[in-house]
Amino acid sequence: MAEKWLVGVDLGGTTTKLAFINMYGEIQHKWEIPTDNSNDGKNITINIAKTIDQKLEELGQEKTKLAGIGMGAPGPVNYATGVIYNAVNLGWPDNYPLKDLLEVETNLPALIDNDANCAAIGEMWKGAGNGAKDLVCVTLGTGVGGGVIANGNIVQGVSGAAGEIGHITSIPEGGAPCNCGKTGCLETIASATGIVRIAMEELKKEDAAGELKDIFAANDLVSAKNVFDAARNGDALALLVLEKVSLHLGLALANIANTLNPEKIVLGGGVSKAGNVLLDQVKINFDKFAFPRVKKSTTLALATLGNDAGVIGAAWLIKNKSSIQ
Amino acid sequence: MAEKWLVGVDLGGTTTKLAFINMYGEIQHKWEIPTDNSNDGKNITINIAKTIDQKLEELGQEKTKLAGIGMGAPGPVNYATGVIYNAVNLGWPDNYPLKDLLEVETNLPALIDNDANCAAIGEMWKGAGNGAKDLVCVTLGTGVGGGVIANGNIVQGVSGAAGEIGHITSIPEGGAPCNCGKTGCLETIASATGIVRIAMEELKKEDAAGELKDIFAANDLVSAKNVFDAARNGDALALLVLEKVSLHLGLALANIANTLNPEKIVLGGGVSKAGNVLLDQVKINFDKFAFPRVKKSTTLALATLGNDAGVIGAAWLIKNKSSIQ
Repeated sequence: MAEKWLVGVDLGGTTTKLAFINMYGEIQHKWEIPTDNSNDGKNITINIAKTIDQKLEELGQEKTKLAGIGMGAPGPVNYATGVIYNAVNLGWPDNYPLKDLLEVETNLPALIDNDANCAAIGEMWKGAGNGAKDLVCVTLGTGVGGGVIANGNIVQGVSGAAGEIGHITSIPEGGAPCNCGKTGCLETIASATGIVRIAMEELKKEDAAGELKDIFAANDLVSAKNVFDAARNGDALALLVLEKVSLHLGLALANIANTLNPEKIVLGGGVSKAGNVLLDQVKINFDKFAFPRVKKSTTLALATLGNDAGVIGAAWLIKNKSSIQ
Repeated sequence: MAEKWLVGVDLGGTTTKLAFINMYGEIQHKWEIPTDNSNDGKNITINIAKTIDQKLEELGQEKTKLAGIGMGAPGPVNYATGVIYNAVNLGWPDNYPLKDLLEVETNLPALIDNDANCAAIGEMWKGAGNGAKDLVCVTLGTGVGGGVIANGNIVQGVSGAAGEIGHITSIPEGGAPCNCGKTGCLETIASATGIVRIAMEELKKEDAAGELKDIFAANDLVSAKNVFDAARNGDALALLVLEKVSLHLGLALANIANTLNPEKIVLGGGVSKAGNVLLDQVKINFDKFAFPRVKKSTTLALATLGNDAGVIGAAWLIKNKSSIQ
């Protein structure tokens, strides 16, 4: 078993990332293909099977080299059955039997989990989690996703909706509307989209001035990156936006930690690339809202695997299954 | 093994509850003794050993009838070592080796967990949880405690502080001071003490009137039970207090559910005896703040074991250990 490879797949709406990974979590080969959503999404599993066979041929390897295929999918998953309850953007009907289809197409044992859960596992195994058995991973991207690991296992929840950290209600009254139908969700504040929204509110005020305002005046738009860059330069308006975002993110993470007391909370996704200008401010608020014993023992850290977290975590599903068989 | 008894102990600051429980979770005998905190708490484990021996003699049973002793203790516990990090009111020094002392005194294998965790396990095994593998139990008493079960196991957290649900920050700015040193904790709102505090704020207003106000005028104090009784009778002031409490409790529970998507959230403790007048109002707020998929699958329920939850859950620690050995 030790010399076999795991296949890790991170399925996204536009791109499918794949990797051959050894039993020690080291990526041997990685590549990506476009995700083809046409034909009710039926091509997705076929294309994955084809690209794996092609890659094996390129490398002069047999199919027997592969121990199995783990996949992170963008939607709530029934881990036991490998059914994806619903996935937007992929063309699939509800309750799509993804594991079964992947197994018949690839002739490999398959396991499916939610993509945010796979990222959390990846960070636990090879990233900032450093093997921590109690870990929460929060992905700050266009939206806000999350994965919760307790006692070394992903928490799926009764209907696969555990880890919906982006939909923690942070502003109970009068918050911005969220795609989920609620208002005031963390995602409306701490995602790239949310940060830009809050910045725009400030930029539209009459007395708005400074670096970020100049960027806005020149381009008629700003990005989350612009906000963090300006904050790093001491721009008052950008710092105000950063404070608002960090307050709500620090509060939500502290309350998660008060409930779970994880060893680490890992921040990943595009927004987390802001680095310490964000992390330091979030920590200040986390410390304010965390129970004293939790504050002392739960640490916040930036993700270290970047885009590889998903494929590494997906591969772990097979490694973990193999080790208990 | 099937005919053996488990000893369940629920250690409180003033009373120690004990029970002999069979392998099916049925209480065979239960009794209680006062908790003797003198002598730096050294008498506690001695008295437990003595009362168990006396009870066996009363019943004409041998020590070999007992499979082991599980105990819930009021403080953060290292489950693996059975050390209680710190316990107020018991007289013990920090990092007290409770499991080891209990084992030498009783000559029985012992396991220790936090008392709120034991209550959660009790409700999972024999109470409102009905065997749910993903369960959160919230105890609303003088304070607010909690236990989190994920994938069938208690979540301890890295320093035993998981389940500190009472210290979720619900009012980020300007909340009431909490015993933990923070402000605005859920415990300052949804505990019996918190409910009375909020009621007093309303009762001191000039225009206060109605049933609850009359009770206050007659006794110069009100209880949480008075508030719920008056709310049940439609008293406007009491309903206002109930709304405030339910808003924050519903919000906190929804955010826990957005993170963990448990099958059930069970409300126990003295305050939960208010029953549906509280539960219905909490549900309204829970539904408002829960992610749609979570709202559909996570249900709120009242605890059913009352004061027996702790001893039953403590006994389960031994049953569970026995079954995996």
